[in-house]
Order: sequence, then C-alpha cells, then structure tokens
Amino acid sequence: MAGSLVIQSDFGISDGAVSAMYGVAISVDPLLRVFDLTHDIPPYNIREASYRLIQTISYWPEGTVFVSVVDPGVGSERRSIAVKTAGNRYVITPDNGTLTHVNEKMGISEVRIIDETVNRLPNSGESYTFHGRDIYAYTGARLASGIISFEGIGPEVPVDSLTALPLHKACIVKENVIGMIEVLDVRFGNLWTNIPRTLFKDFEVKYGDTIQVTIMHDASRIYKNIMTFGRSFADSRVGEPLVYVNSLDCLGIAINQGSFANAYKIGTGTAWKIMICKAPKIVY
Amino acid sequence: MAGSLVIQSDFGISDGAVSAMYGVAISVDPLLRVFDLTHDIPPYNIREASYRLIQTISYWPEGTVFVSVVDPGVGSERRSIAVKTAGNRYVITPDNGTLTHVNEKMGISEVRIIDETVNRLPNSGESYTFHGRDIYAYTGARLASGIISFEGIGPEVPVDSLTALPLHKACIVKENVIGMIEVLDVRFGNLWTNIPRTLFKDFEVKYGDTIQVTIMHDASRIYKNIMTFGRSFADSRVGEPLVYVNSLDCLGIAINQGSFANAYKIGTGTAWKIMICKAPKIVY
Amino acid sequence: MAGSLVIQSDFGISDGAVSAMYGVAISVDPLLRVFDLTHDIPPYNIREASYRLIQTISYWPEGTVFVSVVDPGVGSERRSIAVKTAGNRYVITPDNGTLTHVNEKMGISEVRIIDETVNRLPNSGESYTFHGRDIYAYTGARLASGIISFEGIGPEVPVDSLTALPLHKACIVKENVIGMIEVLDVRFGNLWTNIPRTLFKDFEVKYGDTIQVTIMHDASRIYKNIMTFGRSFADSRVGEPLVYVNSLDCLGIAINQGSFANAYKIGTGTAWKIMICKAPKIVY
Repeated sequence: MAGSLVIQSDFGISDGAVSAMYGVAISVDPLLRVFDLTHDIPPYNIREASYRLIQTISYWPEGTVFVSVVDPGVGSERRSIAVKTAGNRYVITPDNGTLTHVNEKMGISEVRIIDETVNRLPNSGESYTFHGRDIYAYTGARLASGIISFEGIGPEVPVDSLTALPLHKACIVKENVIGMIEVLDVRFGNLWTNIPRTLFKDFEVKYGDTIQVTIMHDASRIYKNIMTFGRSFADSRVGEPLVYVNSLDCLGIAINQGSFANAYKIGTGTAWKIMICKAPKIVY
Repeated sequence: MAGSLVIQSDFGISDGAVSAMYGVAISVDPLLRVFDLTHDIPPYNIREASYRLIQTISYWPEGTVFVSVVDPGVGSERRSIAVKTAGNRYVITPDNGTLTHVNEKMGISEVRIIDETVNRLPNSGESYTFHGRDIYAYTGARLASGIISFEGIGPEVPVDSLTALPLHKACIVKENVIGMIEVLDVRFGNLWTNIPRTLFKDFEVKYGDTIQVTIMHDASRIYKNIMTFGRSFADSRVGEPLVYVNSLDCLGIAINQGSFANAYKIGTGTAWKIMICKAPKIVY
Repeated sequence: MAGSLVIQSDFGISDGAVSAMYGVAISVDPLLRVFDLTHDIPPYNIREASYRLIQTISYWPEGTVFVSVVDPGVGSERRSIAVKTAGNRYVITPDNGTLTHVNEKMGISEVRIIDETVNRLPNSGESYTFHGRDIYAYTGARLASGIISFEGIGPEVPVDSLTALPLHKACIVKENVIGMIEVLDVRFGNLWTNIPRTLFKDFEVKYGDTIQVTIMHDASRIYKNIMTFGRSFADSRVGEPLVYVNSLDCLGIAINQGSFANAYKIGTGTAWKIMICKAPKIVY
C-alpha cells in the first residue's frame, strides 16, 4: 500500500505551483495519496509554518511524510533536510527554522541532508527557484511510496545542527502568567498563546473565574481588560471576550462570534506578549 | 472498498484545522477517500451550510458520508447527530439547522444522536472547542469506512425533533412571483433565489420574455428594473442583467460577466425578498 | 487501475460548484482519483486558464485527463471539445482559446467534439449554465476511468480548427529583448514574462550582470530601472528588484520578499510589454 504525503507551503492555490507539486508526486507513484496541510502560510513566515506542523502532525498516522516549503532562502546555501520525529512521522523542508516547534514539543530522532545528486526531479532544468517541486515534492513522494528509504535521503547530521527560531516558554512571574501570541486561529480571529492549560492550572484559575488580560506589542500596551475563563464559547454571550483552552491545549483569547485580532489589530510573534492575572476585586 | 467522506466547515483553509480533521479520518482508515464540500462557509452561517448540502449531496454516490461543521454552539447543550437521507447519504453535524434544506427538499429517513462515550477520538483531551476534529470527523470516518454501522452512532430520535431554520416557500400572489434570495453564486455575484423553474413555468414566462424584478431588504426597495428571462448568459450582452435558471433548477439573477450582488450590495437570507412580474408594456 | 482527473475552473471554492463536479466524477467511478489544478482563475480569464495548463500539464503522468472550465460562453454555440496532446495527456474544455499555450508550446495531436447526446450527465435537467458539472466533469471522469475511449468522445475535427488567443513571441530587436507579461506568480507578486531563458542566453547576459528593465502598458511607461540578473532570490538583498529564471524556464521580474506587481500596479496580457537591455554604463 502506498503511503501518504501531506504538503504545506506559502504558495497559495491561485496558480499552478501546488498542482505541479502534486503532479510530480503522482508521477513518482500513481497510487500515492497526497493531501494538504495548508498553502496559505503568509509568504516567508517560517514561524507560522513551524506552528502549523505541530498543530497537525500528531493527528496523522505514523509513517506519514510531510513536505513543508516556506523557503525565502531558496537558491542560497541553506540545507535541504528530512527528519524523522520521535513519533515516526517524516518532514522534508529547507532547514530554516520550520522544525522549531516539532523539535521542541515532539522531538526529532534523526536528521538527514538531502543528497540532491540523486534526489532531484530528472531534467528539472535551469530553474533555481522551485525546490518545492524539483526536490521536496519529488523526494517526499519517493520516501512516502517506499522507493527510497529514509537512509536513502542522504547523510545523517546531528539533531542539534538544526536551525531553530527563538521560542519563548510561558511562565509564572509573581501574580502573572506571561506568554506570547504564537499564531491566530485565522478564520475566527482568535489569539492562540503559548500558555499551556497545565501551566494555567497551577495558577488555580477555574472555569467561570474572572481574569485580567493584558496584551503588549513591544513596549506598547494594546489591550487590557477583564474577561471570563470559559470552558467554551457557549459559556459567554455573543460579542463578549473570553479566555478558553484551544484545540492544542493552550490558552486562546476570543470574542464570541467576533474577531479579537481584527478588533484590536493584534498580530503574532515574539513581540506580542500576553499577561494574565486574577481580576482585581472591584469595590463600588 | 473504503467509502467516501465529504467535509464542509466554516474553518477556512488558512490554518491547520481542516488538515487535522483529514488526519483523524486517515488515521481511522488509511484507505478512506476524503473530499471537501467547501470550508468557506461564512463563519457561523448555518443557513448557507444547509444550502451547500442540498446543492451538492445528490451528485455524490449513495452511501457517501458528509460531515458539516458550522458550530457556533460548540460546548453548549446542542445535540450532535447523524442522519440518513431519503437518498441514502449520511450527514453528521451539530443539530442547529444545518439539515433544514436537506430535510425539506430531499427528506431524512432516520436521525441518531452521537453517543460520545464511544464515538470520540481517544485522548482528545480537555479541549471543548473542536468537535469537528474530535467527534464529527472521527465518527464520520468510522461510519464511511464501515467500522461502525449507522446504528452504532447512538440512539435513534424522531426526525421531527431536528432543529430547523425558517424556510420561506416561493409563491404566486396575483400578478407576482414572490421569493427570497437564498444564497449567492459567490464567485460571480449572481443571486440564487428559492423560486423553482417549475413554479415560474406556471407563470407562463418564456425564454426571451421581458420581466420586472424588484428586490426588497426588509421594507426598503433596493432594486427595481426590467430584464430578460434568458436561457443562458450567452443570450444577453456583456454587462446586461438577466433572469436565468440556475444549476439547482431555480431562478438566478445575474449581470452577464458582472457581479449583481456587488453592484447593488445585495445579501442573502429571509430579509431579502424578490418579486417578479411581467414587464409592463411601455408606450412611447 | 483508475486514472487521474485534474480539474481547473474560475468557480472558486467558496460554494458547492467544485464539490458537485467532484461528486459527479466519483459517481462515475468510485476509485477515480480527482485533483485540482486551481479554481482561482480570475472569472472569464481564458488566457490565464491557458497559461496554468502549460505551467502544470507536463508534470502529470501520461494519460492524465484535465478538465478546464473557464466558460463565459456557456449556453452559446461555442464547441465543447477534448484534445490529446503530443505528450499523451487529455484536456476537456470549451473551445474558447483555453488550449492556446498547450497547442503552441507542446502540440496537440487530435481534437474531438464532445457528442452531448451520449456524453452528458443523465437527467441533468433544464439548466444551461453548468456544463462544468453536466458535461465536462462527467465526460472527463468517463474518459479517465476508461468507460469511454478518446474516440468515444465524439467526431474528430482538424487541430487547426481550434480557437486560439493571440500569442506574442518574445524577440530580440537591436539592443533589446522584447516580450510581454503573461501572468503573475500570484502569491508573491512576481511578473512572469514570455521571454525564454534560451532567448536571453543569445543576448549574452550572465548571472550577476546588470540590466535595464522597462515595462509599458499600451503607450504608457510604467516602470524603468536597472536591476541584477540573479540566479535566485538569494543573490539579492531583501527589497531589491531582480530578473531571474522562473520555474517555466522564462524570465521573471521580482522584488525579493516584496510584490513587484503591487508596488507598480502591473497587470498581465498583451497590453503589458517588457523591454530588457544591457544597463548603460554610468560614469560619475
């Protein structure tokens, strides 16, 4: 039985790039099953690509091969690599930080550099700008279909040679839980933080409690208000803000049926900090 | 042979949510065939989700399992259900009105409540906000692949216990055909009404006849003009408005190669009424 | 083994149109493998549909069946055709110019008119506006799955009876390479020209050389500046313009990590001309 290939990129689906990658994969093995993670990673946003992998990878079967192509350095000396995760999935990607979250939260057991002398689409010509098609999709399809083994990718290199983005761990400082906004739940405008539910549990906040949320962008305070920690949106009124546990078991900030991100023009990345403390008692 | 699973949601495809649902389904059965209806239902728009099901369901083979997740009430007491249609397709969805059109126009023969004690992704944790992944995709994949039978979903409940949205039937009142704008042909900006061609036929209008179209939003008249009833766009000039029979055998209103919806800022739902009468003879 | 069907359209994926086409195809053959080229061709833009076919078709295996539905003339007398390319792929489409690039650059060996008396979805009713579903997807699925042969499509007609769009070939005139902007690399805003790398080679420009690029829209000069001919984006600084060889082995114009098309409001088509000459020596 042929395996599964799951492709992620920042190419969008408005032109032929993704379809060319699919065609290369199906040409390698007509029975290969090919799926999308997303192709709507904002252009060049390696951090978001890294996050989308950790968001989804464990829901796919062992042996699944992921190809992730957010590749601002295509044509430079950046390495092309394939890794095996602690949970036995594979990811093929430029080595530019795309594996930061997977390595940190799931673990990577083995890294190999793609040997492009054997793992490159035959006759892929003089183009130096589409390794997604010519190297990554081609190699991913050959790995997923069993034509090459993981060892056949190329020579092994140390796991700690992987390029990593800076990751900030959420922590408790005095009366505050401090974290960052990692990513948006794009469609609904919810903020997804790096604060695990388990950390928040130590903070002794229960569903229904009132808490104070402060959001900073660098040194600017963008938002400060009191809201409820709800089990789900159904615990709040339409239009009300709330803190909840998202589908990755971390804290999310939302406006019920509204867009928190749009309402307060909030972005993502290490410059976007969030502080949560118990709501001060208000005495009238 | 594994069956087919067709997924609809309001999640968009910009993040990892849909891919996580696919991964859950493929993990249930690596041979399952998974497809999309659309993931671009406007957030929380249950009526449009209901319409997209009736627009497509009969074009898929008998036995196809649909999962539809437009779920503003996730985490509330709303029921999670699976139904069997009169035409032997299955739909798994929150019971919030998503089945209104299918029940009205196609018929539903059996309804079961999902027993979440057995039909929930193992270890799906403390998240209360992503039943699409943890319950619906998981259960849909198990039904489509034959791991559980329809009876294995959970206890049967009466068909008339289904939550329904208000539906307005088009009718003829004196000299007018009166209907509503159900949905847009999004890409082209055409208005799709609830007026069946067969009803219009009773009205004795032939292709090429001139008719008067009035569009109301609540009590406001948004549009009133005379146009031709054309067999297809090819019967009109570019830029000209026309009434035509759409691909669901109901009346549509369009501007040939333009966007009627954008031109007059027209929306959808029960507040958007349309009246059609024969064009008055103009005597110069 | 069932074959592969690859679908392109200008329908978008926000409503049920594409899913209805998929359903028709899967109903023809439950084992058929169905893929997307793109559904985001700008409405009615036949030239772009033609380009996306040539961009992708050769990456798919021989025998693959493409269905392309950009069909402003649906319901008119325009022909519905199926062609076999010189490289043994098939394309089913309205005969409106969609095959211009494939015919010019790859060659078409045989053209047949679809006989709609046998190749039309049974009971597809009185709708005259969705041949994509009722004729093209249905016929494409039957061809891809082997239910009908290419001969079973309908009668053969001469290849030179195909409708063609005007194509301009890039050429060298005195000191200039002159071409047009065929299409955008949509997501990144790069301009893709019709100037082949091989033509440019005759011009004796090497990677790293400085060249002058002028862009005209009809008689207006929109852009004129000097930039480097780079092997890839990595050879330039972020924000810098460059000329490079794109993934179709033609010249592209880009701003590294920016959008050239947005920056200078540049479009595509025969009215958008580009001239390249060696950069004048600047003496200070």
